[in-house]
Amino acid sequence: MIPGPTEVSEEVREEIGKPVSPHYGSDWVGIYKETIGLLRTIFRTSGDMFVLVGSSSAAMEASVMSAIEPGDKILVELSGNFGLRFKEIAEAQGGKVVPLNVELGNAVDPDEVRSVLEQDRKIKAMTLVHNETSTGVTNPVKELGDIAKEHGLLYLVDAVSSLGGIELRTDEWNIDFCITGSQKCLETPPGLAMMSVSDNAWKAMERRKEPIRGWYLNLQNLRRYMIMWADWHPHGPETMATSLFKGLRVALGKILEEGLENRWERHKRAGMAMRSAVRAMGLEPFANDQIASNTLTSVRIPQGVKGTDLLKVMEDEHGMLIAGGVGPTAGKIFRIGHMGATASANYILPAVSSLEISLKKLGYPLELGCGVQAAQRILGKSQV
Amino acid sequence: MIPGPTEVSEEVREEIGKPVSPHYGSDWVGIYKETIGLLRTIFRTSGDMFVLVGSSSAAMEASVMSAIEPGDKILVELSGNFGLRFKEIAEAQGGKVVPLNVELGNAVDPDEVRSVLEQDRKIKAMTLVHNETSTGVTNPVKELGDIAKEHGLLYLVDAVSSLGGIELRTDEWNIDFCITGSQKCLETPPGLAMMSVSDNAWKAMERRKEPIRGWYLNLQNLRRYMIMWADWHPHGPETMATSLFKGLRVALGKILEEGLENRWERHKRAGMAMRSAVRAMGLEPFANDQIASNTLTSVRIPQGVKGTDLLKVMEDEHGMLIAGGVGPTAGKIFRIGHMGATASANYILPAVSSLEISLKKLGYPLELGCGVQAAQRILGKSQV
Repeated sequence: MIPGPTEVSEEVREEIGKPVSPHYGSDWVGIYKETIGLLRTIFRTSGDMFVLVGSSSAAMEASVMSAIEPGDKILVELSGNFGLRFKEIAEAQGGKVVPLNVELGNAVDPDEVRSVLEQDRKIKAMTLVHNETSTGVTNPVKELGDIAKEHGLLYLVDAVSSLGGIELRTDEWNIDFCITGSQKCLETPPGLAMMSVSDNAWKAMERRKEPIRGWYLNLQNLRRYMIMWADWHPHGPETMATSLFKGLRVALGKILEEGLENRWERHKRAGMAMRSAVRAMGLEPFANDQIASNTLTSVRIPQGVKGTDLLKVMEDEHGMLIAGGVGPTAGKIFRIGHMGATASANYILPAVSSLEISLKKLGYPLELGCGVQAAQRILGKSQV
Repeated sequence: MIPGPTEVSEEVREEIGKPVSPHYGSDWVGIYKETIGLLRTIFRTSGDMFVLVGSSSAAMEASVMSAIEPGDKILVELSGNFGLRFKEIAEAQGGKVVPLNVELGNAVDPDEVRSVLEQDRKIKAMTLVHNETSTGVTNPVKELGDIAKEHGLLYLVDAVSSLGGIELRTDEWNIDFCITGSQKCLETPPGLAMMSVSDNAWKAMERRKEPIRGWYLNLQNLRRYMIMWADWHPHGPETMATSLFKGLRVALGKILEEGLENRWERHKRAGMAMRSAVRAMGLEPFANDQIASNTLTSVRIPQGVKGTDLLKVMEDEHGMLIAGGVGPTAGKIFRIGHMGATASANYILPAVSSLEISLKKLGYPLELGCGVQAAQRILGKSQV
């Protein structure tokens, strides 16, 4: 029940464990094209789609180095650890980061963004972490997309822990670079990053004064190879991680079989159930209901309990992995993932039960069953 | 029988197909440290070891951006496609490439390297592709290491299709950055790149005038995280591709069980057998015996036969995948891998047999069995 890597179905794991396929030739071209089509449907985009051999951070850097040149201003919201990561990456690429500080546990405020942009007309691009895995907050990705469009900014969205679980519409919401990883709601082992790129983004790259410095993450370079080797090696110049890729294809097929809207609904109910359960235990969700994430729940560690003790009892006595805080939230919260397969009663009810028993053991006062019952009331409304 | 991705054992594939492990926590730290130890033994290095989520090209770029700053001169040998890749990457990083042209099918000549370096004292670094997969040539990696040391150059070696199959001694041979991928002689699916970094290389990075531009492939950045998160998330800032990584651990264990020297010997014999077989068929190996690779054999396409036809008959009628040329050798040669598991009689004899039958079918005159017999004579000397 950690917020990723998530559970991977046996079907996907079996596919990954099959003999290795080459990353070229006509069979591969077919597999590749089919997978890109599935990704476009899930991203809700007709734009270009890249699958990188790398973690999501690789795609974050690919987007940043495409969107800005050294000295360019980029607005980076700092609502959590992955906002900070965008800041580090933008600085490492020579960008001038205009930081937007956000109190931990809060979401980015569109009005604040607007006011920063009105004061500084030189800002060229803006990043947003759609679902901040470190705090359990979902940021207003659509509203900021409108603002980005109004101000003619490139809009870089980290959708790593949201895409496939929380509503996201890449094209409709004006996202120029939409980034995700294989290991969260797409229910595939870690190792691949997926990114869509808008026409707008390509046009901005053509207007650069200085070429992109880099090769492996340079989208213009990757596209050059994709065109040159389209009939044989269509994913770009590198050796693709074919086993993971083929697993991803199976996972995406299963996602579309369930239906994106059904998945958004299932994760919404999972989030409601988990928050209701922790409140029933007298605990305090770190984020309020309007902005709380549907793919993970962050909870303040109650007074008198040590977070590391809680994680240890959960793991040792219940075989239940949950996560602590990360970066700025370390030591303040614990986090329970309900992402992909685990956004269901079969996972949530035992997790809540273990949490109750573990907290009780650590001296926290609660009536056994209160959390489970609260979750059950919400989850029971339909089979999830 | 293509020159990578290679056959992966059932044991490794089973490991990769297991439920996904998280990329942090005490279990993960143990797995990580053990694997790094195995890699150090196989690389023959006591230097730092990185495992990148990426293809080998990612590690090539990480080495180049560490070794040079924009405007720095770097000597790049162009004995094949992967030499060209180093050139592209070095140029994309703003380096001034001093090219060393090598006739295709030949190896880099150490005397020529010496003479270039004597004429140009400003060259700061030098690249070498140990085993040029595109031509089937093994370059003199030890001799060039001596020259790099004499001239105080950083030495960047692509050992992608050699390490684990052809003798290589990172520390003894003065290699500052030694690069390989998971999918060749290490017999793991593609998706991970491994690289050793010498003390010398770190010292050179400290003397840079300009910081490394980049984050994901910036070794100084990765090392900062590795130190900061040593007890919890010791591989760096990114989400590790844990399933592949755990498969790699199993594969490395099996490699060391066989013994590196035994593997070098097995691949040597495989190379001899394959070259002997193609000569017995009246075909011409693309590289002469002194420099021919032990992990793949490149062969000139004989007059009157179309390379694409040969590959098609081999695949369609014998289920046998071999490769054509790549980059500058496309259309000129075909290539047969004998790398990892396939460097053995069980794979080589059927491959030679299919090649004979396919060539005969395409009108090439040969006496059936001549190649198989020649290979058998060499392979029969011991169980390989």
